[in-house]
Amino acid sequence: MLDIKKVYQEIDRRYDEIVQIRRYLHMHPELSFHETGTAAYIADFYKGKDVEIVTNIGGGNGIVVTLKGKNPGKTAAVRADFDALPIQEENDIEYKSQNPGVMHACGHDGHTAYLMILADILIGMKEDIDGTIKFVHQPAEETPPGGAKTIMESGILDDVDSIFGIHVMTTAPLGTVGYHSGVTQAGRSYFKVRINGKGGHGSMPHLSNDPIVAASHFVVGVQSIVSRRVNPLETAVVTIGSFDGKGSFNVINDHVELEGDVRTLSGEVREQVKEEFETILDGIMKAYKCTYELIYSHDYPVLVNNPEMTELVVNAIKNSELNEVKDFLDCGQVTGSEDMAYYLEKIPGAYYYVGAKPEGDVWYPHHHPKFNIDEESLRISAKTMAAVIKEYLEK
Amino acid sequence: MLDIKKVYQEIDRRYDEIVQIRRYLHMHPELSFHETGTAAYIADFYKGKDVEIVTNIGGGNGIVVTLKGKNPGKTAAVRADFDALPIQEENDIEYKSQNPGVMHACGHDGHTAYLMILADILIGMKEDIDGTIKFVHQPAEETPPGGAKTIMESGILDDVDSIFGIHVMTTAPLGTVGYHSGVTQAGRSYFKVRINGKGGHGSMPHLSNDPIVAASHFVVGVQSIVSRRVNPLETAVVTIGSFDGKGSFNVINDHVELEGDVRTLSGEVREQVKEEFETILDGIMKAYKCTYELIYSHDYPVLVNNPEMTELVVNAIKNSELNEVKDFLDCGQVTGSEDMAYYLEKIPGAYYYVGAKPEGDVWYPHHHPKFNIDEESLRISAKTMAAVIKEYLEK
Amino acid sequence: MLDIKKVYQEIDRRYDEIVQIRRYLHMHPELSFHETGTAAYIADFYKGKDVEIVTNIGGGNGIVVTLKGKNPGKTAAVRADFDALPIQEENDIEYKSQNPGVMHACGHDGHTAYLMILADILIGMKEDIDGTIKFVHQPAEETPPGGAKTIMESGILDDVDSIFGIHVMTTAPLGTVGYHSGVTQAGRSYFKVRINGKGGHGSMPHLSNDPIVAASHFVVGVQSIVSRRVNPLETAVVTIGSFDGKGSFNVINDHVELEGDVRTLSGEVREQVKEEFETILDGIMKAYKCTYELIYSHDYPVLVNNPEMTELVVNAIKNSELNEVKDFLDCGQVTGSEDMAYYLEKIPGAYYYVGAKPEGDVWYPHHHPKFNIDEESLRISAKTMAAVIKEYLEK
Amino acid sequence: MLDIKKVYQEIDRRYDEIVQIRRYLHMHPELSFHETGTAAYIADFYKGKDVEIVTNIGGGNGIVVTLKGKNPGKTAAVRADFDALPIQEENDIEYKSQNPGVMHACGHDGHTAYLMILADILIGMKEDIDGTIKFVHQPAEETPPGGAKTIMESGILDDVDSIFGIHVMTTAPLGTVGYHSGVTQAGRSYFKVRINGKGGHGSMPHLSNDPIVAASHFVVGVQSIVSRRVNPLETAVVTIGSFDGKGSFNVINDHVELEGDVRTLSGEVREQVKEEFETILDGIMKAYKCTYELIYSHDYPVLVNNPEMTELVVNAIKNSELNEVKDFLDCGQVTGSEDMAYYLEKIPGAYYYVGAKPEGDVWYPHHHPKFNIDEESLRISAKTMAAVIKEYLEK
Repeated sequence: MLDIKKVYQEIDRRYDEIVQIRRYLHMHPELSFHETGTAAYIADFYKGKDVEIVTNIGGGNGIVVTLKGKNPGKTAAVRADFDALPIQEENDIEYKSQNPGVMHACGHDGHTAYLMILADILIGMKEDIDGTIKFVHQPAEETPPGGAKTIMESGILDDVDSIFGIHVMTTAPLGTVGYHSGVTQAGRSYFKVRINGKGGHGSMPHLSNDPIVAASHFVVGVQSIVSRRVNPLETAVVTIGSFDGKGSFNVINDHVELEGDVRTLSGEVREQVKEEFETILDGIMKAYKCTYELIYSHDYPVLVNNPEMTELVVNAIKNSELNEVKDFLDCGQVTGSEDMAYYLEKIPGAYYYVGAKPEGDVWYPHHHPKFNIDEESLRISAKTMAAVIKEYLEK
Repeated sequence: MLDIKKVYQEIDRRYDEIVQIRRYLHMHPELSFHETGTAAYIADFYKGKDVEIVTNIGGGNGIVVTLKGKNPGKTAAVRADFDALPIQEENDIEYKSQNPGVMHACGHDGHTAYLMILADILIGMKEDIDGTIKFVHQPAEETPPGGAKTIMESGILDDVDSIFGIHVMTTAPLGTVGYHSGVTQAGRSYFKVRINGKGGHGSMPHLSNDPIVAASHFVVGVQSIVSRRVNPLETAVVTIGSFDGKGSFNVINDHVELEGDVRTLSGEVREQVKEEFETILDGIMKAYKCTYELIYSHDYPVLVNNPEMTELVVNAIKNSELNEVKDFLDCGQVTGSEDMAYYLEKIPGAYYYVGAKPEGDVWYPHHHPKFNIDEESLRISAKTMAAVIKEYLEK
Repeated sequence: MLDIKKVYQEIDRRYDEIVQIRRYLHMHPELSFHETGTAAYIADFYKGKDVEIVTNIGGGNGIVVTLKGKNPGKTAAVRADFDALPIQEENDIEYKSQNPGVMHACGHDGHTAYLMILADILIGMKEDIDGTIKFVHQPAEETPPGGAKTIMESGILDDVDSIFGIHVMTTAPLGTVGYHSGVTQAGRSYFKVRINGKGGHGSMPHLSNDPIVAASHFVVGVQSIVSRRVNPLETAVVTIGSFDGKGSFNVINDHVELEGDVRTLSGEVREQVKEEFETILDGIMKAYKCTYELIYSHDYPVLVNNPEMTELVVNAIKNSELNEVKDFLDCGQVTGSEDMAYYLEKIPGAYYYVGAKPEGDVWYPHHHPKFNIDEESLRISAKTMAAVIKEYLEK
Repeated sequence: MLDIKKVYQEIDRRYDEIVQIRRYLHMHPELSFHETGTAAYIADFYKGKDVEIVTNIGGGNGIVVTLKGKNPGKTAAVRADFDALPIQEENDIEYKSQNPGVMHACGHDGHTAYLMILADILIGMKEDIDGTIKFVHQPAEETPPGGAKTIMESGILDDVDSIFGIHVMTTAPLGTVGYHSGVTQAGRSYFKVRINGKGGHGSMPHLSNDPIVAASHFVVGVQSIVSRRVNPLETAVVTIGSFDGKGSFNVINDHVELEGDVRTLSGEVREQVKEEFETILDGIMKAYKCTYELIYSHDYPVLVNNPEMTELVVNAIKNSELNEVKDFLDCGQVTGSEDMAYYLEKIPGAYYYVGAKPEGDVWYPHHHPKFNIDEESLRISAKTMAAVIKEYLEK
């Protein structure tokens, strides 16, 4: 049995290391699917330790580190993502991104840092561990198809009984732990439509077939999916984020391109929206005599936290008497998406939030060029996750 | 050869008869396809005269009176329509309509009156006539499919070499003769669309399929026929005059019905609009998962005045030294329609306008409940048509 | 303290009376706000009994019967509605509606019947009652502004501590009790828009201003309220149930009229939808140069069942050992509306459903011309409500 | 009096010079408003000749060369444009454009060449000339605001009595002279609209204000200008050539930009369309809560050929017994635009077309990367213009 007090002491003792790792990663951010440097850095860290390390999972940058406890038992997994975003950092800090146009603007540097040190501490205490812990260092959370998909498809987590993960949140005060049971984040579908009309001179529309008019009718028509087709008690969002019909003022384009995504909180609605989208697209294009090429793919699934595991997480933390945790918040559902959903689709588990809003009045939301976290949230992440693991493995 | 001066004298002498007949007809208006009383009245008038009378043409109320001149020659036809409109007369006159809700609000009573007396005068002078004159008393101009169609289909005008007609116009001053050569009035198509969705409770749109939304998208979409599909140098109008989607505020209807018409100035555009209309309807209905039932029929064709005959009309009148005619006006094209077009589609001829605006400042447009003409326009109609017939037959 | 077993026995003993009353009411249905006969019938029933009867509440047909128990205590209210619907009954039954075009197609006859007998039983046991019970016989549930509003505004329920109500449901099997805690039914807003364009001839759209085109753009535009403006995690429905633009195919109308309603599950969203609706209407009408006259009124509020009272209802019934109740079902939220919401807006309470699906495979939904209930549901209604009242007053 | 036969002989003798100049210009094309090399080349040509040369007119590259005949008389102007297009030439010819991405793909090189040699010939015959001829070498026809505007505003043509111009046309066979009297080419208006919404994450549309949806409604709404607002007997085209709303699929843009143009055949319709455009834009933006910035400017006016001058052109050429001219064609109206319209707005004149389709089956339309003319059309241009000038000055 783990001595949780001792784990906490170790976390406190090695807190500076967490910060150092986090800052190192912050200075060296890498875009989704291109995180080779970060992956090497993480793998190096574990080298020589008493664990099994698998890298390049499914041909990607994923790393799974397996720690076998002394005693047999269940297998728990903990996931931390490590990719960064195509954003130019605007913070004036010592550890500012050294990679122009790339930034850890979502806190994945912190996720990785706390998990590495927590893993190392647990490795040192493996005699006290019942069962197995898999530390999942995952690339490419920010960009579909997402790193989680590849890792799940590799089979490396097939023996995992339960999985947990944390996201630090600048939208919540330090000391808050956020959670929600059941459907929590939206599934997402991605679409790209090329609408082909017939180009020509702006003064002779009858000799052309104007794809801007056809596409505009489509954008307008798509609104009725959410307004009339989907059960009003369900949730759906269809956003056309990009309407690329730039051209010359006096020339009718021969095509335009639309791109966007869809959010839903159930698999049925997800399928329904796809079907309605295709029906409306097909009909409108026929009406305006355009042809089209459609790519429509579901990516991140609906994120469903297992109710039992969510309760376990909340109770484990509540019972852990961590002074740092001051508040619990049921965060409800959101229409954002997360590839953590791929794990939770197959493995019972829970994904929870750790408040990371910096002290003072000035803070920035995720994906902002001035995003930054209160690093104390990493101490809380490490400690709460330790409590969760203990509770899960020893219960 | 006709002594045109003598014809004019006879017209002047019998002008009161024209007025009497016109007023009698005005008091006894009948709706299109129901003009049995009017037809009997006209046929009676000719009974016993030295002409051939054919009634009930093609099963309708049409009457053709054939006057064979002494000498052989060409065959001319003159057409006057005699149906009235579903309008409640609001004039305060002695000869006000006695048929509630029905009114000669377009001047057809005058057309018929002048032609009956002119015909009678010419019958009396048949010794002086070269060739044949067919007096065409036509029902049902106001309502598609139109009386002209039946008469043309009957074959009774197959031997006619040229045809002429007049419309009195309150929009032009007395003394004006209006004309236009070539394409003059629009061809018309009629459509009725029943859009079938699926009814249900207003609070649960996903269990229904709202035909009001689908039909609205169609109305909006139809605009692009004229704006983008038809050659901008051509003319087209698509009007949805009726959107019948009345229902309860909290119930989704199971269907709606649209009705409207289309105006074009060429047969090609007429066909094109029909094809585009069907394409847009079909596509939009597919997009919104509704079915539809469409009736789309061309009725009155484009009215084309034969250029040679138009010139003949203008010259005949100009050369006739009629003091009553003070002005000639090329009236250009209009988007209104007239079933005179059916004759002119097959027989070279010309349709012209005779100014009939009442004296003073107060006058009303055609189809107005207070419409009335200056009856002097009938004297001018008779005289100018006499001049046209003479010119045509004797040239 | 009430002897609940004895109440049950009385209900069983007088079950035939419940059925007789229900059938009498079924034969004599009256439309909302016109239920004078029904109101007189109910008032008569209570005449001479040891209760206070107030009729014609707020000038309407509402009746509140107050039963003061022997002992002081809380005041509970029980509500049953008694209006019928403008539907021609198609059932072939002995007690078929004798009022052509009017029918109890929603079960209010049953609500009234069970409550009258239950009240009478309790009146007979007033010695055992702690506190006060107000039996609320309410007219006009089916038609806004709704009878509940007037009753609440009259102040007659100002001293009520808690209120309860039942709806029998043919959508649920006999023996099922349905409930939901918190927001349960939608608030509703009603709108009527007259859109004024300028009429004219269909061939000359530029001289008119086509309100059918403007209104269609509005219908299309309104879709974006739900699709883009309302928080996707919230619920809203905007239905345009009536688009009255009937006219002649070749005439442009001078106006059209739209009617519809809005459903929301929160007061904030209700206000937001109203504001967005007006913004879109105003902008679109400006764009298409039409004027408009808008009536937009909130009617039934969001129906919120008090969580504590909902729990009380469920527990009271569960603990009552009623063999007739076989199943409990959390029915979740619906987008339908109910004027019971007016009471629950001010008074903590709970509204629950009693399964009433007739035996066999054939049954019809509410508001159907063949709607009918299994009358055993009225026995269950009476017994469960007795249990609820006892639990509430004696707890 | 000019000896036209002698002029023709001179044109034939110096035809090779025309071709050389045209080919030189073809190799050295320059974009509108940047034709400094071309302007210098033209000015050089006239240097030392017995004419007045004004360059840099109104601060632009325009050149007017004034030839005063021996005898007093009227003042005629002849206009040739000399700018090229932003097109990469794809012809495989010796005299291919040496300026990458720029090409004389509209025949202005030919216009300039024929006029230079014709001017030189006439300079040599000034003793025979009655009145004055102004040779107008105009830059920037292809790009609004157009070179003609500046020249007209400079006042240098204030004393001109009549103006003529030619466009060579590959769409007509060699030997054809095309013309139209009255309204011939469309006036054009240019617009650019920036639509400002509010950006945000694609999953939370209610926190943003999606300008793609607003702009799409506007594109759809604009269709009703042509379909319902403009007199169907008039001509109008509104083309949105550019819809610049490119962005990320999961982000709502904060703005989009539309650009396009409008063609009309009358000044009244031009003003009407502008007013309707602004009304619809303003209304739709209010409806969807976006703001906008609009640039809407009329550029080239409606091109109106003076009927008398058009007749003069046709007659002059018909009477000139030019074997090279085989056919006359009334080309009717087009929805294209030309800044020649600026001259014709103020000065009576005529603009006509000279067939220039190359021999054989292969030819390309204007503005095509493989556009080329039959250079013989330049001989015809010079001769017909000589005949027109003689007719005009000596009549």
